[in-house]
Amino acid sequence: MSNNNLDNTAVVPTAVDETTTDPSDDQIVDPWTVSSKNGINYDKLIDQFGSTKIEPELIARFERVTGKKAHHFLKRGIFFSHRDLVEILDAYESGKPFYLYTGRGPSSGSLHFGHLVPFIFTKYLQDVFNVPLVIQMTNDEKFLWKDITLEESIQFTINNVKDIIALGFDIEKTFIFSNLDYVGTMYPNIVKIGKCITLNQIKGIFGFDDSNSCGKFAFPPVQAAPALPDSFPHIFSPSDPMTKSIRCLIPCAIDQDPYFRMTRDVAPRIGYLKPSLIHSKFFPALQGHNTKMSASDSNSAIYLSDTPKEVNEKITKHAFSGGRKTKEEHELYGANLEVDVSYEYLTYFLEDDELLKDIGDKYSSGKLLTSQVKNILIDIMIEINKRHQEARARVTDEITKTFMSVRKLNFAMPTIKK
Amino acid sequence: MSNNNLDNTAVVPTAVDETTTDPSDDQIVDPWTVSSKNGINYDKLIDQFGSTKIEPELIARFERVTGKKAHHFLKRGIFFSHRDLVEILDAYESGKPFYLYTGRGPSSGSLHFGHLVPFIFTKYLQDVFNVPLVIQMTNDEKFLWKDITLEESIQFTINNVKDIIALGFDIEKTFIFSNLDYVGTMYPNIVKIGKCITLNQIKGIFGFDDSNSCGKFAFPPVQAAPALPDSFPHIFSPSDPMTKSIRCLIPCAIDQDPYFRMTRDVAPRIGYLKPSLIHSKFFPALQGHNTKMSASDSNSAIYLSDTPKEVNEKITKHAFSGGRKTKEEHELYGANLEVDVSYEYLTYFLEDDELLKDIGDKYSSGKLLTSQVKNILIDIMIEINKRHQEARARVTDEITKTFMSVRKLNFAMPTIKK
Repeated sequence: MSNNNLDNTAVVPTAVDETTTDPSDDQIVDPWTVSSKNGINYDKLIDQFGSTKIEPELIARFERVTGKKAHHFLKRGIFFSHRDLVEILDAYESGKPFYLYTGRGPSSGSLHFGHLVPFIFTKYLQDVFNVPLVIQMTNDEKFLWKDITLEESIQFTINNVKDIIALGFDIEKTFIFSNLDYVGTMYPNIVKIGKCITLNQIKGIFGFDDSNSCGKFAFPPVQAAPALPDSFPHIFSPSDPMTKSIRCLIPCAIDQDPYFRMTRDVAPRIGYLKPSLIHSKFFPALQGHNTKMSASDSNSAIYLSDTPKEVNEKITKHAFSGGRKTKEEHELYGANLEVDVSYEYLTYFLEDDELLKDIGDKYSSGKLLTSQVKNILIDIMIEINKRHQEARARVTDEITKTFMSVRKLNFAMPTIKK
Repeated sequence: MSNNNLDNTAVVPTAVDETTTDPSDDQIVDPWTVSSKNGINYDKLIDQFGSTKIEPELIARFERVTGKKAHHFLKRGIFFSHRDLVEILDAYESGKPFYLYTGRGPSSGSLHFGHLVPFIFTKYLQDVFNVPLVIQMTNDEKFLWKDITLEESIQFTINNVKDIIALGFDIEKTFIFSNLDYVGTMYPNIVKIGKCITLNQIKGIFGFDDSNSCGKFAFPPVQAAPALPDSFPHIFSPSDPMTKSIRCLIPCAIDQDPYFRMTRDVAPRIGYLKPSLIHSKFFPALQGHNTKMSASDSNSAIYLSDTPKEVNEKITKHAFSGGRKTKEEHELYGANLEVDVSYEYLTYFLEDDELLKDIGDKYSSGKLLTSQVKNILIDIMIEINKRHQEARARVTDEITKTFMSVRKLNFAMPTIKK
């Protein structure tokens, strides 16, 4: 997986036709490029990708089937799109097994808050469904795409895995693997997938050309393979004829969808079910929707390793404000929540719906100033960071090793609901 | 590796310009295609590939340095071309370590005599140099290129490995591995190689196009990786800084050279020495130089599993004769040894130089008839087959498992010669 967010150095401004009449036409979203002039148009992305919008009815069914409250990421449209999520709810309802698969391309030593989004949601799904989870660390991909050594990508992997574990994944039900270590076990499925996809298709899906390395062309089947359950013979019995029909649900940022469109095309041709997907929006950079979080600009994102002082400074100085130019104007017209980064961050990290609504109402009507909203956000982010750093400090090398060891998982398949 | 001989179903007549004035121009040799109208012109191949002919001086030096008699495959020009073989002799002479690497694409259940050629010679080299040997079974390649299942390619692998072991490789010094099992350990080197080669280069070297599967484009680094010594951490200590500078010598049929031209290009760029190569000619089909041994025509080759009766029939009926049309003509003009398959087979399998010369002299002067030469060959081939089948019967599953297990090898690095 690439980073699910905008910190990829490969995210460069892409040549677009400046004469285009539809300004939303210039958005480009793939695993290596997320760019747009006017912010991503997510409805348009759903059209482009052919996925399905998550409507309130589906969320209601999710709550009915699971008996659990929908996560605020779902209710607030942060996870906004899906493919065959209904099949997963059907499977859960009828007691059929499935598992979760997500991943991360370890491109730097420390994660930022944007990186957390798919993992926070994945942990929620694991808690709700009580199913196994596999997390692929694509250090091979990062090595192939970036100017780093294998050794660096391995070091990033360990650091990132500790941050992921700190989110509270169940050690009994979660297998985290580094491609550089684990690819061998998936190799039979990798060649099966690789045999099915022509170079023409790879080029069409990912936009590679003949000047790219053959390593890059070899990679898509590696990210596809974990969506096939028998890529994990230690988790799902290879001798059980039912193993191949275990479903997979992939929570990820929508830029990863091309990999799984490809996977969904191939899976039925080699005897598997299509994996289901649930897509998140992109977590914005502090500077606003149209900017990118960049590993080379540490002020574009809040890192999990930032001190309270750094969190305070970054939000105070850099979080793009939807407030008005003067206090008088602001009190008259209120803030534009659509572009206000502090408010958007609150939609991610302030779980209390009523409080969020209250802040939104007051801010958009001018009763709250940007500085006040920023202070609310700063308190929340410092608290989350503090808790995260404490949790991460408890993640020992031993615990990390266990999460990453090839072992049986201890999970109950869902039972049939009344 | 592909089969080192002409039994590949991918060896199809290739479109060539019929108007070409130089009839030798139509020869095409790559890992999947060996075709020519007038027999392969090996001198021309050396020119095309940029390798070096093995001259008598080099053979003399080989004998001097090793203190061993040159194998008749060397003396008779069956191994006829090389790259940097001199570097290996230098290394041996100065007590520097190196290892041997060869391989086989297991495309059918039983091997024929042509398949044996690189292995017979490799065993000789192992005996002479007393160095470790790694044998790659490219069942992934066969699955990617042919209409077979993974399960079939795995079954072929085991059958072929037993035939290989039966040739007498030293269990203490030989590691035989199936790519489907072992690729994980080589994966760090595979991605390092893959990062260095563009698609343009792959297309130039192998002639793939965009309608080929991405699995095929992913394969060349997999065949290259065993030429890097740290692909075998159980054999060559990964913590020893000298490991990366251990040389590798690859005995193979010349159709495999494109893989290793690529490897030789990449190796120095990622910190390794270029592997050395020693190339064999193609073992001819019974029907003659311009025909191919085909898995779909069992009469085109003598298989190691053939009965004495089958060996007798195949040679009697199908071995292309350089003899004359009538007995009278034959006694007058003698046989054309250049095109006589029985005589050529004798150059492979009749070790006695004097006897071979005597047969050649008498046959080419008409004193021996084709039927008499065929009878000599039949006796030899039946004897070799018998011995091979007996040896193969002694190759138990346990022995096979040991050869294929990831383990330390027990070998002495060469010592400095006086």
